[in-house]
Amino acid sequence: MGLNLTQKLIRDHLVAGEMRPGEEIAIGIEQTLTQDATGTLVMLELEAMQLSRVKTELSAQYVDHNLIQEDHRNPDDHLFLQSACDRFGIWYSRPGNGVSHPVHMQKFGKPGKTLLGADSHTPAAGALGMLAIGAGGMEVAMAMAGHPFFLQMPRVMGIKLTGKLPDWVSAKDVILEMLRRHGVKGGVGYILEYYGPGLRGLSAMDRHVIANMGAELGATSSVFPADDAVAAFLKENDRLADFRALSADPDCRYDALDSIALSSLEPLIAKPSSPGNVVPVADIAGEDIYQAYIGSSANPGFRDLAIAAQIVKGRRVHPRVSFDINPASRDTLQQLIAGGHLAALVAAGARIHQAGCNGCIGMGQAPASGRNSLRTTPRNFPGRSGTLEDSVFLCSPETAAASALTGKITDPRTLGVKYPKLRRAQKLLLELDVLLAPPASAEGLALVKGPNIQSLPELGPLADGFEAPVLLKVGDDISTDAILPAGAKVLPYRSNIARIADFVYGQLDADYVKRAFEVKERTGHIIVGGENYGQGSSREHAALAPRYLGLRVVIAKSFARIHWQNLVNFGILPLTFLRVGDADRLHQGDRVNFSRIHAAISEGKEICVSVNGEPLTLGHQLSGRQAEILLAGGLINWVRGKQGTEKH
Amino acid sequence: MGLNLTQKLIRDHLVAGEMRPGEEIAIGIEQTLTQDATGTLVMLELEAMQLSRVKTELSAQYVDHNLIQEDHRNPDDHLFLQSACDRFGIWYSRPGNGVSHPVHMQKFGKPGKTLLGADSHTPAAGALGMLAIGAGGMEVAMAMAGHPFFLQMPRVMGIKLTGKLPDWVSAKDVILEMLRRHGVKGGVGYILEYYGPGLRGLSAMDRHVIANMGAELGATSSVFPADDAVAAFLKENDRLADFRALSADPDCRYDALDSIALSSLEPLIAKPSSPGNVVPVADIAGEDIYQAYIGSSANPGFRDLAIAAQIVKGRRVHPRVSFDINPASRDTLQQLIAGGHLAALVAAGARIHQAGCNGCIGMGQAPASGRNSLRTTPRNFPGRSGTLEDSVFLCSPETAAASALTGKITDPRTLGVKYPKLRRAQKLLLELDVLLAPPASAEGLALVKGPNIQSLPELGPLADGFEAPVLLKVGDDISTDAILPAGAKVLPYRSNIARIADFVYGQLDADYVKRAFEVKERTGHIIVGGENYGQGSSREHAALAPRYLGLRVVIAKSFARIHWQNLVNFGILPLTFLRVGDADRLHQGDRVNFSRIHAAISEGKEICVSVNGEPLTLGHQLSGRQAEILLAGGLINWVRGKQGTEKH
Repeated sequence: MGLNLTQKLIRDHLVAGEMRPGEEIAIGIEQTLTQDATGTLVMLELEAMQLSRVKTELSAQYVDHNLIQEDHRNPDDHLFLQSACDRFGIWYSRPGNGVSHPVHMQKFGKPGKTLLGADSHTPAAGALGMLAIGAGGMEVAMAMAGHPFFLQMPRVMGIKLTGKLPDWVSAKDVILEMLRRHGVKGGVGYILEYYGPGLRGLSAMDRHVIANMGAELGATSSVFPADDAVAAFLKENDRLADFRALSADPDCRYDALDSIALSSLEPLIAKPSSPGNVVPVADIAGEDIYQAYIGSSANPGFRDLAIAAQIVKGRRVHPRVSFDINPASRDTLQQLIAGGHLAALVAAGARIHQAGCNGCIGMGQAPASGRNSLRTTPRNFPGRSGTLEDSVFLCSPETAAASALTGKITDPRTLGVKYPKLRRAQKLLLELDVLLAPPASAEGLALVKGPNIQSLPELGPLADGFEAPVLLKVGDDISTDAILPAGAKVLPYRSNIARIADFVYGQLDADYVKRAFEVKERTGHIIVGGENYGQGSSREHAALAPRYLGLRVVIAKSFARIHWQNLVNFGILPLTFLRVGDADRLHQGDRVNFSRIHAAISEGKEICVSVNGEPLTLGHQLSGRQAEILLAGGLINWVRGKQGTEKH
Repeated sequence: MGLNLTQKLIRDHLVAGEMRPGEEIAIGIEQTLTQDATGTLVMLELEAMQLSRVKTELSAQYVDHNLIQEDHRNPDDHLFLQSACDRFGIWYSRPGNGVSHPVHMQKFGKPGKTLLGADSHTPAAGALGMLAIGAGGMEVAMAMAGHPFFLQMPRVMGIKLTGKLPDWVSAKDVILEMLRRHGVKGGVGYILEYYGPGLRGLSAMDRHVIANMGAELGATSSVFPADDAVAAFLKENDRLADFRALSADPDCRYDALDSIALSSLEPLIAKPSSPGNVVPVADIAGEDIYQAYIGSSANPGFRDLAIAAQIVKGRRVHPRVSFDINPASRDTLQQLIAGGHLAALVAAGARIHQAGCNGCIGMGQAPASGRNSLRTTPRNFPGRSGTLEDSVFLCSPETAAASALTGKITDPRTLGVKYPKLRRAQKLLLELDVLLAPPASAEGLALVKGPNIQSLPELGPLADGFEAPVLLKVGDDISTDAILPAGAKVLPYRSNIARIADFVYGQLDADYVKRAFEVKERTGHIIVGGENYGQGSSREHAALAPRYLGLRVVIAKSFARIHWQNLVNFGILPLTFLRVGDADRLHQGDRVNFSRIHAAISEGKEICVSVNGEPLTLGHQLSGRQAEILLAGGLINWVRGKQGTEKH
């Protein structure tokens, strides 16, 4: 039996495990992508690992998120990232070059390669027949250091596309149709693989739109074959040499099947406040809007902006509409200028913003109170726009542009004009030196750190025996937001662990940090949790910052998966109660004595401790690899040790 | 004896006073300009005045300052301003149209007219032979309501320009030369009037550059003749019918004289952190830079951006330089696209920002810590960029663009290339409907107020007799910042007096607001101050917010002029101690009894009060007009009364 394309891509990169859905596998990573919001911590992790140069074929760092510079912190981060790129051998894409996903696809995407990105929309590169997956920063740092990426072997959903999109309907409506059918959890555990004759009418950038928002279905990734459309895209980008035809075997099987007749689609729109809330535009046409917003990684192509420009050309946007244009890349901006599209947008009354993520991630362009905003962005989670009780709709550029003209939610087919025919983009590529290649050697290069950027703290190995107090006992379902909040007050310290540690558990127990500091050097401390400890956001800081404060052990009824991994990665021992009622035996202030625990951890055995002199038996679920990491004091120390071993 | 142009402009608009330097005069105002940072309070003042329609020939409201929309507040303000424009008969320039000063000059500027603007760079329109003055919001609101503007008759400095600017030297270097000679206080009490054969080489937009930054010398305004260059500018803007030749009489006199031989100028630069810190660029060439910034009302013209584009065309900006391009208007952006200049900038690696004030007022684009930023903006006050200890230099577009290429402060003459010859801008004017004209009638139009926008509180008239407690006694030199701070925490409430009042005196006495509320309705209260009470920023909120809290009287040793006027404008009685030692007789908690004070105020007499039963005589310096305003409970009530009288 043949293989589908996803299976082929995984097979070609498999370094451990069996390709059975649900089983842990490890794959080799050839390319990585980081952006500025996640990249600073990744670079600090590489520094702490004492990495010499990245071991991937290609790693690229983009600055596209924190482009609003209200004080020194964001520009300091940019300079830090640039210096780290030089130091570690990473391409640096400066502010103004645009959003990571389209730029990466255009400049570096290659059929058949693996890409791991510290951004959830990394799968967009699946448009070129790549296996592109989003992951946490530390996992991307590990890949940059040459380690494989571990994941559960996904199931593969095959989606057959047939027919041709009607006028006024575009790629965005295809992925909105997928969201309408499957909802925001319908892709969990799957890679979505598209195939069939309908692909002929979809360019590589159209496929990018679809692959990008596969993330909104919860899919691990999306994959398209590398066919003529991909060859044409690479040719336009002067990289035809990187083309390699790739497709599923004719006799392959899929774990699930779906199909879309493209000709039957109509303009769709996701209502507030979930990408899964999809209805036909016609169903809600007529509602007043405040904003029409074009751009983001979900509609980044020349076509997406040019079609909007041609729809508004020679007309005026409605007097009360803010028509916000966000070019996704420098190349696209250049092509929009050359094709006369930018002039058409400006004349129609659009606001032209710098190339980048911008309002899609709440960096400016927030809508007014209680007003409707139509956006081509991938997400409309509540408040993501920056306005607390916002009303954001997701739609195609056609729907957004038509609505900008009328001031109301408008099915673009009802505009009463002919669907514009676009001429191809002029081939006007910027030379690669606008992205900055790393120097051949890092000789003498230091990291450039503004006052708010601090190296990661040194973390010692876990002792074989120690006694420490329980400084905090919390209830069930403690989230990583409760451990360490996000928000404008805390986020600017993301590159400064000592400073961000001041906010740990601040909302729950204002005194915890003080108590932790009192015993930080002497004994460290222990936290006792309930069920599902560490649920929610995957932020690594929720493990690293408490570790900085001296946290050595968390004992809980159960852990949320990602936080549990993060605890191990930063050298904190996660233990579970074994018997009902055991949790009641531990209180704030108790002292717990650990003795000869190394062997028990390594051998997967239960751990016996003494609480105020009384014995208590606790469990752990660490694999052999994780036990090694933990005893080393966390992943960074473990990697350093490996590198040391390699050198000798 | 003939008159200079400034004297002619004042004479043509004089409604009260004699044209003797230093004497108070009143002039009629034909046009007003507001921007969004000052406009919201102006509109609330018009609402409180119960104004029907503005009585100027033309009033225009621009949205150019608060373009970063991080939450609902800025977009709510924009919608509020737009509704107020419709309601009161004001042109509305939406976000994206650009900076007030160049747009106003281009669309509405007329030789011979008066313009009062709630922005300190309003004098830029003097480039067209207008008399254009910046003022506080309430004064602009009064002008919109049809009242004359009061000012001290300025002295006039005549500056004779001869010769022609060399290559690589432009208008910015002319005003930097003025700042080098006269410093930041050299223009105080003056209007700067330019004349002479050197004008022939300076376009209207070049003159805008010079008139704009006359504000940095402290001048009341700057004035240029309306000559062929002005006629050419109006013709380019399809408004030749608005031209009227204007110049000084040949036999006129000036109160002071200066002259500049343009051919002798070289590229100049103002070092951190004052516009008066001017040296030749050559003196400090070679220092590394982080940023080169083009734009703002100080270099807003097509030429200013096009010359920068031609300098970098076909080259790459230095890898470590953020080259930030800020088109000042929609028209200019359009012309830069048409002329190929925007494409040249994008290809060279520039970041293209939306049209507006942007980084000039600290809205984004802050430089990195300890790094040099070269800007074509008018001001480099410490921290204005957003970065606390910044290092901002002011220079011409030529110097900024040359430095962007080299990464170092660079005298553009040393670039080793030919000075680019610019082709004229293509005539590509946007139709006036991109600016929004007010509807002919305001029938049925309501103001649109987001949750953070509240009407001004009603203020009652001053009673003839009352008793009130002293709630606060402060020392000398209390600034309006001490009364009501600025900053990110307080500023968002600028359209919400009830909310911003919570911050009054918070830094000095956290309990004052609570005490004030306790007696707000019953008696109101009194504040006792020292010398120079209310110095510093002219913010009106520092009078209005305490007034909202029930402040009726301030008794001080002396007052700062503007705050003293603001107190009167908002119906607070400012009284002074007459004898040394009297201030020691008043303490926090004392009760002061006022009895039959109306007559004393109206007749300019001393006011006898009783403090805990003991008599105390106090003075005031109110004019007859001010007495009327005060007794009415402030300017808004006074205007309402006048309108009422007019109606009957």
